[in-house]
Amino acid sequence: MNLFPDAVEELRLRTREFIRTTVIPNEPAPGERLNPAVRTELRAAAKAAGVFAPHVAKEFGGQGLDIAHWSPVFQEAGYSIIGAVALNCMAPDEGNMHMLELIATPAQVERYLRPLAAGEVRSCFGMTEPHPGAGSDPDALRTTARKVAGGWMIDGEKRFISGAAGAGFCIVMARNDAEDDHLAGATMLLVDMDNPGVRIGREIHAIDRAIDGGHPHVHFEGCFVPDDAVLGKPGEGFRYAQARLAPARLTHCMRWLGLARRAHDIALDRTERRELFGSPMRELGIAQNMLAESVIDIETSDAIITKTAALLAIGERAGSSLSSVAKVHVSDAVFRVIDRSIQLCGGDGVTDRLPLAGYLNEVRPFRIYDGANETHKWAIARRASSNRRREVEQGEPYRADVDAPR
Amino acid sequence: MNLFPDAVEELRLRTREFIRTTVIPNEPAPGERLNPAVRTELRAAAKAAGVFAPHVAKEFGGQGLDIAHWSPVFQEAGYSIIGAVALNCMAPDEGNMHMLELIATPAQVERYLRPLAAGEVRSCFGMTEPHPGAGSDPDALRTTARKVAGGWMIDGEKRFISGAAGAGFCIVMARNDAEDDHLAGATMLLVDMDNPGVRIGREIHAIDRAIDGGHPHVHFEGCFVPDDAVLGKPGEGFRYAQARLAPARLTHCMRWLGLARRAHDIALDRTERRELFGSPMRELGIAQNMLAESVIDIETSDAIITKTAALLAIGERAGSSLSSVAKVHVSDAVFRVIDRSIQLCGGDGVTDRLPLAGYLNEVRPFRIYDGANETHKWAIARRASSNRRREVEQGEPYRADVDAPR
Amino acid sequence: MNLFPDAVEELRLRTREFIRTTVIPNEPAPGERLNPAVRTELRAAAKAAGVFAPHVAKEFGGQGLDIAHWSPVFQEAGYSIIGAVALNCMAPDEGNMHMLELIATPAQVERYLRPLAAGEVRSCFGMTEPHPGAGSDPDALRTTARKVAGGWMIDGEKRFISGAAGAGFCIVMARNDAEDDHLAGATMLLVDMDNPGVRIGREIHAIDRAIDGGHPHVHFEGCFVPDDAVLGKPGEGFRYAQARLAPARLTHCMRWLGLARRAHDIALDRTERRELFGSPMRELGIAQNMLAESVIDIETSDAIITKTAALLAIGERAGSSLSSVAKVHVSDAVFRVIDRSIQLCGGDGVTDRLPLAGYLNEVRPFRIYDGANETHKWAIARRASSNRRREVEQGEPYRADVDAPR
Amino acid sequence: MNLFPDAVEELRLRTREFIRTTVIPNEPAPGERLNPAVRTELRAAAKAAGVFAPHVAKEFGGQGLDIAHWSPVFQEAGYSIIGAVALNCMAPDEGNMHMLELIATPAQVERYLRPLAAGEVRSCFGMTEPHPGAGSDPDALRTTARKVAGGWMIDGEKRFISGAAGAGFCIVMARNDAEDDHLAGATMLLVDMDNPGVRIGREIHAIDRAIDGGHPHVHFEGCFVPDDAVLGKPGEGFRYAQARLAPARLTHCMRWLGLARRAHDIALDRTERRELFGSPMRELGIAQNMLAESVIDIETSDAIITKTAALLAIGERAGSSLSSVAKVHVSDAVFRVIDRSIQLCGGDGVTDRLPLAGYLNEVRPFRIYDGANETHKWAIARRASSNRRREVEQGEPYRADVDAPR
Repeated sequence: MNLFPDAVEELRLRTREFIRTTVIPNEPAPGERLNPAVRTELRAAAKAAGVFAPHVAKEFGGQGLDIAHWSPVFQEAGYSIIGAVALNCMAPDEGNMHMLELIATPAQVERYLRPLAAGEVRSCFGMTEPHPGAGSDPDALRTTARKVAGGWMIDGEKRFISGAAGAGFCIVMARNDAEDDHLAGATMLLVDMDNPGVRIGREIHAIDRAIDGGHPHVHFEGCFVPDDAVLGKPGEGFRYAQARLAPARLTHCMRWLGLARRAHDIALDRTERRELFGSPMRELGIAQNMLAESVIDIETSDAIITKTAALLAIGERAGSSLSSVAKVHVSDAVFRVIDRSIQLCGGDGVTDRLPLAGYLNEVRPFRIYDGANETHKWAIARRASSNRRREVEQGEPYRADVDAPR
Repeated sequence: MNLFPDAVEELRLRTREFIRTTVIPNEPAPGERLNPAVRTELRAAAKAAGVFAPHVAKEFGGQGLDIAHWSPVFQEAGYSIIGAVALNCMAPDEGNMHMLELIATPAQVERYLRPLAAGEVRSCFGMTEPHPGAGSDPDALRTTARKVAGGWMIDGEKRFISGAAGAGFCIVMARNDAEDDHLAGATMLLVDMDNPGVRIGREIHAIDRAIDGGHPHVHFEGCFVPDDAVLGKPGEGFRYAQARLAPARLTHCMRWLGLARRAHDIALDRTERRELFGSPMRELGIAQNMLAESVIDIETSDAIITKTAALLAIGERAGSSLSSVAKVHVSDAVFRVIDRSIQLCGGDGVTDRLPLAGYLNEVRPFRIYDGANETHKWAIARRASSNRRREVEQGEPYRADVDAPR
Repeated sequence: MNLFPDAVEELRLRTREFIRTTVIPNEPAPGERLNPAVRTELRAAAKAAGVFAPHVAKEFGGQGLDIAHWSPVFQEAGYSIIGAVALNCMAPDEGNMHMLELIATPAQVERYLRPLAAGEVRSCFGMTEPHPGAGSDPDALRTTARKVAGGWMIDGEKRFISGAAGAGFCIVMARNDAEDDHLAGATMLLVDMDNPGVRIGREIHAIDRAIDGGHPHVHFEGCFVPDDAVLGKPGEGFRYAQARLAPARLTHCMRWLGLARRAHDIALDRTERRELFGSPMRELGIAQNMLAESVIDIETSDAIITKTAALLAIGERAGSSLSSVAKVHVSDAVFRVIDRSIQLCGGDGVTDRLPLAGYLNEVRPFRIYDGANETHKWAIARRASSNRRREVEQGEPYRADVDAPR
Repeated sequence: MNLFPDAVEELRLRTREFIRTTVIPNEPAPGERLNPAVRTELRAAAKAAGVFAPHVAKEFGGQGLDIAHWSPVFQEAGYSIIGAVALNCMAPDEGNMHMLELIATPAQVERYLRPLAAGEVRSCFGMTEPHPGAGSDPDALRTTARKVAGGWMIDGEKRFISGAAGAGFCIVMARNDAEDDHLAGATMLLVDMDNPGVRIGREIHAIDRAIDGGHPHVHFEGCFVPDDAVLGKPGEGFRYAQARLAPARLTHCMRWLGLARRAHDIALDRTERRELFGSPMRELGIAQNMLAESVIDIETSDAIITKTAALLAIGERAGSSLSSVAKVHVSDAVFRVIDRSIQLCGGDGVTDRLPLAGYLNEVRPFRIYDGANETHKWAIARRASSNRRREVEQGEPYRADVDAPR
């Protein structure tokens, strides 16, 4: 018996098989990037194997999984550093698909979602800005979308726009003024990357390599888009961003947890066969302690992801809150698992004879991306304080009274 | 909407209300123990409130919850240090009830389970022995049960038998020889504590106080019990013990997690109203960091408990394995939450003006009881190694090859 | 060869011998307090053994150690929970002696320091106040000392005044107004505890037991003291308090580190003889890992104490700053060492069969006393920031420029 | 006043000035290596500035520092990733110089030490072997040195020989049989890298870049060296290796601690000027907490290094033992400091706009090189156990008796 429905378990096993027999043999060597031709082949194979785009509705060529059931499948995908790319469920496209499914108009669906879901184009998400613009603090948004005749004029500079080089379109967050039919706030706009008002600027070289298209600056300079480029309603962008961010950070957790399982398997294999001081390493208590801590990190990560996904699936706001907890815990946990696996492999762990050092560089940024863990912890604490304050206001006794007679 | 069925959520809310309005006002002062008369009153009130013995079948006066749904209710019980006692779901009785429901004969059910479930008697579990007997290593069991005419003769010394003083009966683990109808192994026997062959020995004073009946030695000296005192089948005791231990350690997690929530609420209340260096403490980042880490500890504990309970409910062996992971993570996490809450309350945290220092002493032993965390980690690592070894034997590639061309 | 001068090493060995052969056999049972008659005997024996009051000048009956050399001797004293009391170098008296040596007038020396150094009276230090008075934030001081004819009138409430019950005198911190010859600020005053204006209030029961005289509130109500009761100069109290606090928190570190060594020895003894799963525990890697981490905690604590003491001895302000670092590191480290030692002793570790659980309760408050570790960390960070800012202002390049061409 | 003699402090300040004004402006961009011509210029400048080879005797062109005083100067060198190279005090040459000073014959001094100290040649140390040869367990040494007429014949394969490519000579560890004048054991031999029996094999690409000459395999195939190539006495190699390793791992600690200070300065600068949520980051408590933890890591590292170096300087065996403690603590601490600094710099921290991500890759291997931290912990625990066992054998009471009456 399984905790997930049989159909989910079947898709998980199919994905597992596909990743291990078809994807892993095609992984690039440490330090190299995936060849685009190989990517195309892998995606065709994924479609043939019935594992492509697991999170996307069947009508768009996906497997139609409910978000509550993404985790086991995404973890299998993440077991290879190129698994999510092969399955077309990698960031930032996966989060964009999810948001388009939720709020795009039928025309936008046809023009943007369908080719994206099919893996025919890539996309990016234009949120982060150079300091002191939107970063850890989204309210600092500086890029503007000004209403003009027949459309909007976007101006501003974005930064660290993952996947921008080579993308077909960008979902841009911009600040808008109040108008008759909408409040001041933020607006999301669909912008084709070949719009003459779009210019890709300086590349930022980060230590991770898994995202196609790098992390460049993107400049919007007198960038005109028609009215139907607005995604959802003007002024509602922050709300949509929240709706995008919670699932998107959770799918990051799922994929990286898969990679942590891979690192852990490498460590298990190493300690199975390697002897030290006359014993197999797996029988040495210090190694066992590290292996056990990795299991605990993996299992608690899996559990908190599952719970968060279940809450998101039933539309609970608690799911969005819990996604912060999951993000902090999982990003720290997967870093620790990979770090321990390196340590268990000794000198080889820090060389390109094993992929582990590369994995560490891939996951290190996740403790910062999607909101630095410290920012999430700040939000978690504030939420805990305000929830408790409300309880006390509603009658719960104040429990920290030190002057009460005892 | 909730992740648990409505009936469970209703019972949780009813329990929450009962604990907060009826139980907490009756808590003993720090360092004191619960008055037996108060305990009797609280149990009567719990029955009246429809919250008594949540884990027990309705035919025995309980609420009939499935193990998959114990956690939210047990956490509410654990919010008070005496909550589980008031609800008759405290250790060791709760674990004994669960095992009796699973394997007792109808006669044993009537004689032992029914009064235990009703809160009319207490019980204990006779497993641990003085060194070098059964402790972290159950195989070292030294107490013997020798088959004699019409019954069994038990001899041996048990130690750290929580709840023994004042208990009505004990479930004793003893080593048996092979006979025609059973293999050599361990046998569980139901022994009335007024059996003349039973003697309560030296008390062991531990830093926790919440268990009635202390942790004494118990001596079995020529202790005869009739054949129908055998619980389940002779020689199967280790298997039953495993079946008892996994849920029992998980319910400990649930109850202590409830207490961690209480400590966290105290810290939230303190930081809400107390000012330091001109700011409310809740706005000081160092305090926020600690509060957030407590939330993360609490939520990951909740999630891993929920997953483990769900696996145990569908009878998966994985549930038993995962209970080790849950035990280690939760026992460490609740200790950290309480420890942080103390720190957030400053000098008051280590005095009896607040109950926190007492809580720390209550939960400290849980990192040792029910199998020391280090023993569990050893078991977790061995299981991880052997699972992975099996995968590789069945065709998974060995992934730690450092001489493969790259 | 030794890192310390031979005379210091000799005193250390003499103290070690005295503690182990004379003091430890007289330790009270767990949960009990030291009998005053035994204390008197032990002090007489300490004088006879030439180990009494190691930190006090020889003219007052001490051993005349320089502060740079206190650590090895205080650690030996701390190896017994009553060692510092036996040697008359326990808090708060030891810190008071040190300050009196530095700033008392000859008359004050005779009246207060000499009997204190001889162990004839005890003393206390009146700094902490009920919220929102002086606590983690000394600037919040509310107790006042008003200049009146011939002396000062003290009014206010102090709290958590360790050792107050039975003390002969108190060094009180009080706020003073500016006068002709002094600025507004804080003043230290020597107040006899039998002054009619002094009243010992409610006791605060903390989880530590090692300090005679408890931690009560002390009320100063129209408490008149003559002019010669002022210690040092009026208005200079905060400066003196700093001078007292840095060494005082460091000697806490020294003594508790000695106790951590005791706990570690207990764990080493346990793992030496106890077998588990067929091996001596000392050969089990998980136990070795814990033992090694305790060694690292002990040795890094020893090293940072030594460095801080050396800086204090040469009068460097850096010593005062570093004492915050030492306090945080050592208080956390000794807690971990004792906690690990408990874990290594299994069930016995949390009972009174071993003294470890008691030790944990003794050292837990040290993470809060003498400035909560979080407050010290806040100060450490601020100091680091301002030191660095000054460097940059003085010409060091700003090193976090992300827009510099690379 | 300073804790170190004035001459040391002067050299430290001179080194500091040289590193900051001359070395840092010549650092290669992230991912690049130091240009050899620049290295030559920097060394000439270092000689001119009187800071070259601080650890080497003045007769060989160094500054003649005692090992007890290396730390402050080496930390200044380590503040730049190329600082130690500029000063000719980088691994593995620095350790080789130190050993040659201790045990080389006058002829060997002239031929090997003098040019090495002058920075005219580089060297390497041939210890590690492919599995199952010498690695974490030096006793597994497989390379042999066979006595032949007029010299020795060396055969074997070495691995991870840092700095081998381009080195002038190698100090090789090889196993020898017993002969009339020496026991079986290990022998150190000086082998010119252009010896026809030496072949550089496959390169191992590790994530660190700071060591010139990479980490290749080196093959010794019928490699003949004359009798005077033996360093010290045949059969004493393991003893010499210990003598080399303790200081060598300690100087690693010193240099990397310098780099941690650089990372910490970057974080301090960033948090000084960057605002978040309307406050300078340095005033945000979560950032302060991280900064304080970095200070604690840095200061405890500094203190344990200082103590270890002082013990090594007086020739105490305890210094060698303590070097294991220092290695584990410092390698973990510097990793944490750099990791925290990255986190404090947000997205920029993981890009090449700042050097931090590169630093993390430089120091990560140090937790494995020079004996994996786990191996050191195993040794630390064994030493602690055997020291304590000896104490108990010599009369100290066994302190873990749980059956003693209390």
